[in-house]
Amino acid sequence: MAVYTEVTDDDLAHLIAEYGLGELMSYKGIAEGVENTNYMVHTSKGTFILTLYERRVNTADLPYFMGLLEHLNKEGVSCPLPVRNRNGEVLTEISGRTAAIVTFLEGVWVRRPKTVHCHAVGRALAELHLAGKSFPMCRSNALGLAGWHDINERLGAKADEIAPGLATLINYELAYLDRAWPKTLPTGVIHADLFPDNVFFIGEKLSGLIDFYFACNDASAYDLAIALNAWCFETDCAFNATKARALVTGYQSLRPLTAAERLAFPVLARGAALRFLLTRALDWLHTDRNALVKPHDPIAYVRRLRFHQEVTSPGEYGLEPAA
Amino acid sequence: MAVYTEVTDDDLAHLIAEYGLGELMSYKGIAEGVENTNYMVHTSKGTFILTLYERRVNTADLPYFMGLLEHLNKEGVSCPLPVRNRNGEVLTEISGRTAAIVTFLEGVWVRRPKTVHCHAVGRALAELHLAGKSFPMCRSNALGLAGWHDINERLGAKADEIAPGLATLINYELAYLDRAWPKTLPTGVIHADLFPDNVFFIGEKLSGLIDFYFACNDASAYDLAIALNAWCFETDCAFNATKARALVTGYQSLRPLTAAERLAFPVLARGAALRFLLTRALDWLHTDRNALVKPHDPIAYVRRLRFHQEVTSPGEYGLEPAA
Repeated sequence: MAVYTEVTDDDLAHLIAEYGLGELMSYKGIAEGVENTNYMVHTSKGTFILTLYERRVNTADLPYFMGLLEHLNKEGVSCPLPVRNRNGEVLTEISGRTAAIVTFLEGVWVRRPKTVHCHAVGRALAELHLAGKSFPMCRSNALGLAGWHDINERLGAKADEIAPGLATLINYELAYLDRAWPKTLPTGVIHADLFPDNVFFIGEKLSGLIDFYFACNDASAYDLAIALNAWCFETDCAFNATKARALVTGYQSLRPLTAAERLAFPVLARGAALRFLLTRALDWLHTDRNALVKPHDPIAYVRRLRFHQEVTSPGEYGLEPAA
Repeated sequence: MAVYTEVTDDDLAHLIAEYGLGELMSYKGIAEGVENTNYMVHTSKGTFILTLYERRVNTADLPYFMGLLEHLNKEGVSCPLPVRNRNGEVLTEISGRTAAIVTFLEGVWVRRPKTVHCHAVGRALAELHLAGKSFPMCRSNALGLAGWHDINERLGAKADEIAPGLATLINYELAYLDRAWPKTLPTGVIHADLFPDNVFFIGEKLSGLIDFYFACNDASAYDLAIALNAWCFETDCAFNATKARALVTGYQSLRPLTAAERLAFPVLARGAALRFLLTRALDWLHTDRNALVKPHDPIAYVRRLRFHQEVTSPGEYGLEPAA
């Protein structure tokens, strides 16, 4: 939540000209984006977001992310559209950082999602998956099963500094997922981080999706399992079955799950909970207490994981067997 | 440079409705404002700034600041206009903070001001002083000569931690100003903080002034002396006589200084330099090293003060005696 890199008025005016975006009217550094620096830019041609990519982003991945946004826009998915400069490029450089300009998407993210929002998110996720089918580029999921093992090795016994017994829980779960993780489910482009702060609404109408910097190719139903973890638990970590039913119903209104996806869903939900538990645990241990960005509490995902471990059938998520 | 207080979507949508500003489209916390939290808000009726006043602002002063902005707008000065809610009030409450909504002013602040900008700033400052004449409210300058003594007492010998000999320099200067400070110059509303980041330009055209939270009633020419310190020294603290001449010429194109103001100008310039030296020194000593907001370097104002101490005539600032 910070502006890591300053941009001068002269440099930005020059950039805006290169992009054919008219005259620079104003720009403000915005307190969003944990990893990158973002400016909201008004020009005589409209409102845009300028993103400067900081250290944690691998710039080799940017063509995939930018290409995906262009593809999704072409397919009618509402998300930011990268602007091409006069050389036809979407990536540029400013203040010593790789940077991109995308169209600004109106909408607010919902702090307390209701059932109606969950339905809309499920539907938008299915729309994204369908539109992604024709996207030709491929990026493997660095935060899949192998990546989880890597993070666990980095955590080691230190996980217990967060909560006693956490290292044992993670090792138990990884051993289970090594055996149970499905390998033949339908795959495609997934968002992989569809949390409430990445979905915009105007009133109750979903206006678009943002932040595709974890997007990759993986099992589609796993993406739905991530969204279920993100949207269908209350702040006290209680599972909300009504919201889950709304989410999966919204999703299946456009893309019904296969029988294999439905059966695998409890395992996918466990994997999704473990994925965020692991990265949050790592951030928790590696963020100094005076950091600008407060790390998310990993315990919320310990609780989700424990819930999923007790689930005995996909029906508990609102996924009924096919008639 | 931070968002100190979070605002939820529900609370803001409710507030927007109370202000009759249509539908909430988006809002972003902006990384500006050292003392307060600011959000840029898009509604179906336009773009606005929502400010939440944090601890350092005395809310008893807000009616003066808000009334001044309304008055200046009425007089044709380009600055943010407070929006009144359905009860006719400009101040409200959100997230436990006193808050106000003002219209958004397009423009960027100029990181490297040129002579043309200095002329425009001088002119705009005179415009502000003329428009302020008919403003009925009054606020004394807490950062006048008496206030400087107060800050010096808080600094004490600690000033020497910033630079050896600084305490002596400050005491010498305060003793001089006690004798030389003019008491009968024309007074009126002054901005009192017209630094480059508070003046917006679109291209070379000045689009407006912002941040009136130091505004008060004091000697008009002192405000020009503050602007001279802020605009007419290079980053290496060298005085730029061309920019100074442009600033005072722009000012006098609308409001010629009286003979007394011109003669007093070198003293006013010393006082203005000392005022920022003192507050910066205090911030420097009281800001912990991990703070979100980096304090400004007081030494830049030591250098300005030393320059002004050597000045022997108002002509050095471009202020020629009347013909």
